[in-house]
Amino acid sequence: MSDAALQYAEANRKRFVAELKEILSIPSISTLPEHRPDMQRAARWLTDRLNDMGIDAETIGEGRPLVYGEWLKAEGAPTILLYGHYDVQPIDPLDEWKTPPFEPDVRDGNIYARGAADDKGQVMTLIDAAESFLRTSGALPVNLRFLIEGEEECGGELVSAYVRDHGDRLRADVAEVADTGLFAPGIPTLETGLRGIAYVEVEARGASHDLHSGLYGGVAPNPFNALAHIISRLKDPNGKITIPGFYDDVHMPPQDVLDSWKQLPFDPNEMLENEIGASELVGEPGFTALEQMWARPTLDVHGIRGGFTGEGAKTVIPATATAKISMRLVPDQKVREVYDRFREYVLSLKQPGIELDVRFLHGDDPVVVPADSRFIEAAETALQETFGRPTVLGRSGGSMPIVGAFKRDLGLETVLMGWGLPDDNLHAPNEKFSLSNFYNGINATIRFWNVLGQRR
Amino acid sequence: MSDAALQYAEANRKRFVAELKEILSIPSISTLPEHRPDMQRAARWLTDRLNDMGIDAETIGEGRPLVYGEWLKAEGAPTILLYGHYDVQPIDPLDEWKTPPFEPDVRDGNIYARGAADDKGQVMTLIDAAESFLRTSGALPVNLRFLIEGEEECGGELVSAYVRDHGDRLRADVAEVADTGLFAPGIPTLETGLRGIAYVEVEARGASHDLHSGLYGGVAPNPFNALAHIISRLKDPNGKITIPGFYDDVHMPPQDVLDSWKQLPFDPNEMLENEIGASELVGEPGFTALEQMWARPTLDVHGIRGGFTGEGAKTVIPATATAKISMRLVPDQKVREVYDRFREYVLSLKQPGIELDVRFLHGDDPVVVPADSRFIEAAETALQETFGRPTVLGRSGGSMPIVGAFKRDLGLETVLMGWGLPDDNLHAPNEKFSLSNFYNGINATIRFWNVLGQRR
Repeated sequence: MSDAALQYAEANRKRFVAELKEILSIPSISTLPEHRPDMQRAARWLTDRLNDMGIDAETIGEGRPLVYGEWLKAEGAPTILLYGHYDVQPIDPLDEWKTPPFEPDVRDGNIYARGAADDKGQVMTLIDAAESFLRTSGALPVNLRFLIEGEEECGGELVSAYVRDHGDRLRADVAEVADTGLFAPGIPTLETGLRGIAYVEVEARGASHDLHSGLYGGVAPNPFNALAHIISRLKDPNGKITIPGFYDDVHMPPQDVLDSWKQLPFDPNEMLENEIGASELVGEPGFTALEQMWARPTLDVHGIRGGFTGEGAKTVIPATATAKISMRLVPDQKVREVYDRFREYVLSLKQPGIELDVRFLHGDDPVVVPADSRFIEAAETALQETFGRPTVLGRSGGSMPIVGAFKRDLGLETVLMGWGLPDDNLHAPNEKFSLSNFYNGINATIRFWNVLGQRR
Repeated sequence: MSDAALQYAEANRKRFVAELKEILSIPSISTLPEHRPDMQRAARWLTDRLNDMGIDAETIGEGRPLVYGEWLKAEGAPTILLYGHYDVQPIDPLDEWKTPPFEPDVRDGNIYARGAADDKGQVMTLIDAAESFLRTSGALPVNLRFLIEGEEECGGELVSAYVRDHGDRLRADVAEVADTGLFAPGIPTLETGLRGIAYVEVEARGASHDLHSGLYGGVAPNPFNALAHIISRLKDPNGKITIPGFYDDVHMPPQDVLDSWKQLPFDPNEMLENEIGASELVGEPGFTALEQMWARPTLDVHGIRGGFTGEGAKTVIPATATAKISMRLVPDQKVREVYDRFREYVLSLKQPGIELDVRFLHGDDPVVVPADSRFIEAAETALQETFGRPTVLGRSGGSMPIVGAFKRDLGLETVLMGWGLPDDNLHAPNEKFSLSNFYNGINATIRFWNVLGQRR
């Protein structure tokens, strides 16, 4: 049954790409309220697509709705809960895009658009794999539940509330998430760990209104100087975070895992040159780059709002300034404990004349996936058949709240099998998705489900 | 001749306010390129206004032009070079304005609009005073040269180049600047010193493009963290600037001047409550608030551009971040020397993986005006007659490049006689100008010119 599906997938590549372009053309930026109608358009598009191919699908909720679809006719076969997201990151800085972010452009074997790899392209591998079975044999080798959300990039609560409240409807044997990537081109990869995140804002307030820096400079508290004071004391010059107790619950992976990472085909200098483009890598002494990205916590400032940032020279002491800061967390750090420590320490750094407001925006605990289940083995088989080489068991420095929710609320392990590449420019201008990974992703998914179905 | 002018000014107050509203309605924000046509409209409005009343005026230059006008028929009388500016500061944050910034609104004896006090309202006191003479006696008691620029708020070079290159045309006995304020309501004030300014940008660059903070956090340099490191090391917790050598050329005023400041009717707690609205004043220990504002240098961050500052939680490590910083300077600091020290010190604070670009945007040396000239005496007489009480000789913490240029290039002292109030919200939302100060400004100007003309 998988041979016919694989042939169908190959024969329909052109149409699959055309449909991918359709969904990529919808600017479903979840964090910007003005794109709310686009969220609904994208959810509707996916719901229609699933229903058209025989999967019973619906749009759930207002605003940034969930898409849920199910096909449960493979009696006795395992049930897979599939997850992806149709929302995308903002597009600024727009002027750095070579082609418009919502006018998908195919060049050099890639499709360029916001959301191409993160995550619409990957969502479509799941949908196209299912269609390839349904349009050939009229059936699937496994039972599928699709759960596609629109709030992944903005930390929304809809999907986690839905998972928490609908354990019966979402009953499954394993979860499968298509939102990760290959370790390197051609190297099939399963992620076995994800960092958590605590995303916060620190607002510093001085005067009740913006002041002329000539008239009041010297006696008026400056919120930017106050935030700089705080931020500079959150990390030491080596990148080690100086929040008291921050590392208390940090536990490195076992030595055999660390040893296996050292065997991976990874050159930090190549990453520096090809993916980062800075003059050098930074980080705590004594850790490799992979250890820093996969197994060490971080603290990064994303932006500081307030004051005057336009062209020219406005001489203002702004009334307020707000820093957006996130910390990536590793086992066994807990979001709430880290946030409490952050908050207490930041408040201790308050400067004269400044009021501070520390706000928690969202967070997820870190996750580790067991590497020895039958589902991981089935995925390894499918990946070996598709790519012709053994699978790398890696981790991701990113965060994926849904994986923790699947474990916590549904008791499910998650297979993290995805098709991005390190240079796909996620969250940055000129995001892309490799078309050969798109096709391989569909094929590997067909094979994965087929292996699981045969083992029933 | 001044009595008739004073009567005329009183009789025409309503029209003067209506005309002030006209010029305040033109959004002549010099720092924003999209307002270029408004600059030309405002300059043309002023030129027409001067020509209409018999002052030979022209618009000079493109873009943000100068307005120059002269009336030189008072043979044997002194010549006064009058200065003001018609450009205004940006209006953000717009949502804090109670009425739109370019729809002037009169309430509670004030006119509210961007530019009301800084500086269109003050420019109009000069124009209306001249009209009051010309429309009554057909002549002025002194010779006048009007020089009204459109680049004061953006650090443009046009007026300084014009002053440097047109010493003959601008020949005068004294300069008069209408761009300062009263020490407090009802207290006539002449400024005898101005701080200088050095306005700079520091750009920090890490990666060649924005990065996903999950994937690369821990090894990718973060320009915001790097800028915070630098900014936090520019001042100590007491507000003392830590740039090596920064205070080498700082000289406090003589003790008798400092003593006279202590006699002024000034309560720092009232300023804190009524003008600043923060929880406390800050600054170097051992200096009074007036000393800090008038005689001590400062360093303030005005904003930090880059990254993500919108609603929600974008997880980006931005490629670049740029801080806008200014230092206010006092005698005998020199802009170029201060900038060189700033630059050298900032570059010494460079962090791994970060490239720094330090840029000089504009600057002015500090100025001290001699307090014992016949022009200051004439101004004191006019102010006494207008306000019925003796004049305060104060200083301003602000900067006024033109005063240095008048001294350097034309050999002129400047009378800094202005009509703003400490709570006029300069450079901030809800800028206002007191109408009684507007009328008193016109009257005092009429009297000042009259005294100077009588002394010929």
